[in-house]
Parts: sequence; structure tokens; C-alpha cells
Amino acid sequence: MRLFVYSPLSASARRHLQRLAPAELEITFCNDLPTEQQFPAFQEAEVLMGNPPPAWFTAGPPPMLRFWQIDSAGFERYRHLDLRIPVANMGDFFSWPCAETMVGGLLALYRHLPELAVLQSQKKWVGGAFVRNRAGLLRGKRVVVLGAGAIGVAVRQQLSGFECQVQLLARTDPSAQLHTKEQLKAVLPETDVVINTLPGSAEGYFSADLVEAMRPGSIYASVGRGNTTDEPALIRLLQAGYLGGAVLDVTAVEPLPAENPLWHLPNVLLTQHTGGGQALEDESKVDVLLHNVEQLRTGQPLENLVELSKGY
Amino acid sequence: MRLFVYSPLSASARRHLQRLAPAELEITFCNDLPTEQQFPAFQEAEVLMGNPPPAWFTAGPPPMLRFWQIDSAGFERYRHLDLRIPVANMGDFFSWPCAETMVGGLLALYRHLPELAVLQSQKKWVGGAFVRNRAGLLRGKRVVVLGAGAIGVAVRQQLSGFECQVQLLARTDPSAQLHTKEQLKAVLPETDVVINTLPGSAEGYFSADLVEAMRPGSIYASVGRGNTTDEPALIRLLQAGYLGGAVLDVTAVEPLPAENPLWHLPNVLLTQHTGGGQALEDESKVDVLLHNVEQLRTGQPLENLVELSKGY
Repeated sequence: MRLFVYSPLSASARRHLQRLAPAELEITFCNDLPTEQQFPAFQEAEVLMGNPPPAWFTAGPPPMLRFWQIDSAGFERYRHLDLRIPVANMGDFFSWPCAETMVGGLLALYRHLPELAVLQSQKKWVGGAFVRNRAGLLRGKRVVVLGAGAIGVAVRQQLSGFECQVQLLARTDPSAQLHTKEQLKAVLPETDVVINTLPGSAEGYFSADLVEAMRPGSIYASVGRGNTTDEPALIRLLQAGYLGGAVLDVTAVEPLPAENPLWHLPNVLLTQHTGGGQALEDESKVDVLLHNVEQLRTGQPLENLVELSKGY
Repeated sequence: MRLFVYSPLSASARRHLQRLAPAELEITFCNDLPTEQQFPAFQEAEVLMGNPPPAWFTAGPPPMLRFWQIDSAGFERYRHLDLRIPVANMGDFFSWPCAETMVGGLLALYRHLPELAVLQSQKKWVGGAFVRNRAGLLRGKRVVVLGAGAIGVAVRQQLSGFECQVQLLARTDPSAQLHTKEQLKAVLPETDVVINTLPGSAEGYFSADLVEAMRPGSIYASVGRGNTTDEPALIRLLQAGYLGGAVLDVTAVEPLPAENPLWHLPNVLLTQHTGGGQALEDESKVDVLLHNVEQLRTGQPLENLVELSKGY
């Protein structure tokens, strides 16, 4: 079975794959080939790992392709394809770390950890009094999570020990408590924390009127796509001291331009798109691939199949 | 009823007290008096708020004293006293914030938030790749909490959403899973995180042999008293890269001396004794006092009575 690896795996993850792959798997790493040989090798794949350019599918998938393992959670770029073979993504592989970055970021803001980290880097001792009368608590906060996907569900689970009231918003998901923009706008004045986990397809969802409907002193956190937040409105209300702070894993433009005020606004923590990260990430992706290859070999159901493969 | 306030309350907390106190409460603020009038005014108190010097009790408590509201959680300095009046401390008022600083600090270390905060202060964009292959997860970690008091219990509750295995250690508390140093030493090699919440009376408890018994890459966090950890051993194993990191709200000497290596060791977060802090702290202390005064007036049971008042 010919496996074509488009993913730019780390050296140790490549060794991990070579060590654990079944003997019949003949592995080609795209990165090892001269550019002009890459597309022809892709065309011979029976199993594909990674996210090649959508244009490579213009004339249809590789003729012998039996399974495609996308190595991300998102697959918007491929939504227009209809490949009639099974396609899987990474499921909630990136969701839990994203949720930990959100909950950790909120606790960090309330406990002033970013400020303390900067003071530590300057070897400045300020002591308890510096923070005591400003530090807040996550305990008991009223939280709205935009999106009821894997990240939203993980956030809700992680918050369960903090006595928070958590509501999820999703248009159609029956497990969500809020379904429309009107319902959201109505609860924002009584909400302490908004956590955005929306996909790129929800462009502009958290619009200026929603930012303005937030409670004074409340916190906005986002691990959703950068295009789902009205960032100028958010910046305006942070600058005015109306909002209490923000934890942003994503911004509309990345890298964040040097002149963007988010760099230096107080109570803003920029986590620089690290939310989905975890150690041995490439090795874990290989594990997901090999698990699905084994399922394929033995005729068992594949995991994390995505809509792209509806036709299959 | 004469209330003597030794606590150095903020101006707004003083107004808060004056606004909410029952009419019959005659309030004297120690800080308003010249030094030579302070002890005589203390001697006339019927209700005392705050933590005066233990020497003031040498000749016994003020003769008309009916109730003493200590404004801290700790009261070691007063343990030798036997006042035969009810004495209350702040109960778990400081515990929950301490626990949030610990859990927030752990998430911050795993998600590299201190590093990201410092980079943000320098306007340096590093993006996801910088952290992705180093970031860890709190999920599923094996945690031992030293101490089963209010902080330990709050830590356990806060961790409940993270699928951690949590064991509490306390010599006699039956709700703890570990009771002896030997039991602790036996589980340390299979423990990912140790959280110290011990009081000052457990001096030197986490000794060098325990630090050395910790699992490679594991994390030490402490909101206990600084004298309960063998700090030189901890520093040695952090410098060697044997331990994965530390979150320290306390150190043996505070302010931390400029030459102490903890200032700049990687994966060490110093929260500078801010753990117990929360906004409107003085106002909240006043609320605790006024609640107990009301209980006293109406013959209801007082809250957070401490051992000092055993004789009462």
C-alpha cells in the first residue's frame, strides 16, 4: 500500500512512522522529492496524509487513492471537493489544547499572571499588595461559549470545577442553550466571559453591536477564526476601559502588525495561535494515521470521517 | 458595642463598614489614633477586628472583649493564647484564590503563557510553531496535593474537569489518600504534579529526598509556606533540567533576593505571594466581620471559629 506523506513531519515523527508502520506500507515523503516529482508521486498514492494544495485535486483524486488523512481539524479549503473516498480529519485532537489555552488564559488574566511573568523577566519583586486589590476569580462566572463543537464542549468540561454558569451557543445543535444572535444579545449584559470557538464560516459573527452589548468589565476570549470577531470594535472598547480584558489566540491579521494596539493594551493576553499545540504533535498525528490505516486494512470503521466523504 | 479595628482597611472599605454597620456599633480605627492611644483604645474593645501584636494580649484579652475577628486565614502567632472568648478567622476566604493561582499557574506553564506574555511585552510575534512542540496539557495528570485543608480541597475541585487523578496528603485527615512521608515518596515517581499547600508548622516537610524522588519532567507548585520546601534542592533539580518546572507563590526569603536563580530559570513562574488576593478584599473582610457581629447580636452561631477559642 503506497502512502504519500504531504505533512511536513518532524524528523522524530518520521522515524516514529517508519518504526510503527506495517511492512506493506511503502512510504514516500513529499519533502524528499524534487518539486517536479511531487505531484506525480501524489498521483500514485493509495493512502494520503496531509493537506496538499486543493489544485492538486482539480482533475479528481489520485486514481488509486483509498483513504485521505487530513492532518488538521479544519478542512474548509477542501469543502468543494467530492472525492468519493473516505476522508478523515484530526477530530478533537486540537480541541482540548485550545480549550486549555482559553481556560488557562482566563485564569491567568484574573490572577494577573502575564503581568507577574513580565515583572519576573525584569527581576522586579512587587509582592502581594501589587495584585491583591485587582485580582479576580474565575469562580462562579457566567460564561457564554460561541460554538458547541469539540472546543466548546471541552471548555465546558474544564470549567465544571469552577462553579461557573456555562451556556453554549450554536445555530442548530440541540445541546446548545442559545441559538440566535438575538438570544445572545439578550444575555450579554449578564455575562462575565464570552469564549469564541467559531469556525471561519461564521465570518463577522461577533459583530460590533454584540461587542457593545457586553457587560462592563467582562472578558472576551477567542480561539475561533480571526475573521469571526469585529476586531476594531473590540479594540475600541478595550481602549476605553469598558471591557475587562481579552485572551486572543487569533487575530484578524497574523503576525499581528507592530502598530496594532492589542500588543500593549492592559489585560490583553496574546497567545499567538499556539492554542492547538501540544508536545509530540507530529508523532500523535502519525498515531492517528496509523490507527486509521489499521482500521482500513482490517475493514473496521474509520475514525473522524468528515463531510467531504459524504459521497463515499 | 465598641468595635476596635486594627486592620489597616482601605479608605473605601472603611466607608463600606461605616455604611453597613448597625447603629449601635461605635467604631474606632487604630490607624486614626496617635501611637500612645492605640493600646488603651484596644483595651476598651468589645469587638476586635484584625491582627494586633500578640504582646497586646500578655495581660489577658481586653476585659470587655466579646468577639475577635482575625482578618487572615493563618493565626499561628496567637496559638499560645487562651482567651475564653469566641475567635474567628477568615476561613476559606483566601483558599479559593490560592487554588486558582495554582491551577492557573499550572495551565500557564503547560501552555507557555508566561513566555508568551514576555514576548508580547517585547512586541515579538513567534506564532504557533514556537510553542507547538513543547506545550503540554493538564489533562489526565497524576497530581498529589500536600495538605487537605481548604486550599487542597479547592484545588481538587478545580481540577475535577481536567480528568486528573488527584490524591491529597494529610497526616490524620481521613479524607486524604496519603498520610505518611513514606507513602508520599512511594507515589512520587508516578506523579506528574506536586502542589504544596502546607502551613508553616510543617517546616522542612518537602525535604531534599522527596524533591529527588519526583518524576523526571514533573512540576512542583507551592502556595504553602516558604519554609516547608527544601528550596536549594528544588533549585538544583530545576537547574539540572530534571524537573519540568515550578509555580511558586512563596519562596523561603521574600522579596526574592536578586541573585536567586529562580528569577530566570526556564519554566519557573513566580507569583510573588499574590495567591490569596482578590479584588475588594478589604470590603469582603468587612462583610465577614459584619456577618459575625450580626450573628453575635442575634445569638446565632458564629462562622469560622478557630481552635484558639476552644476554651469558650
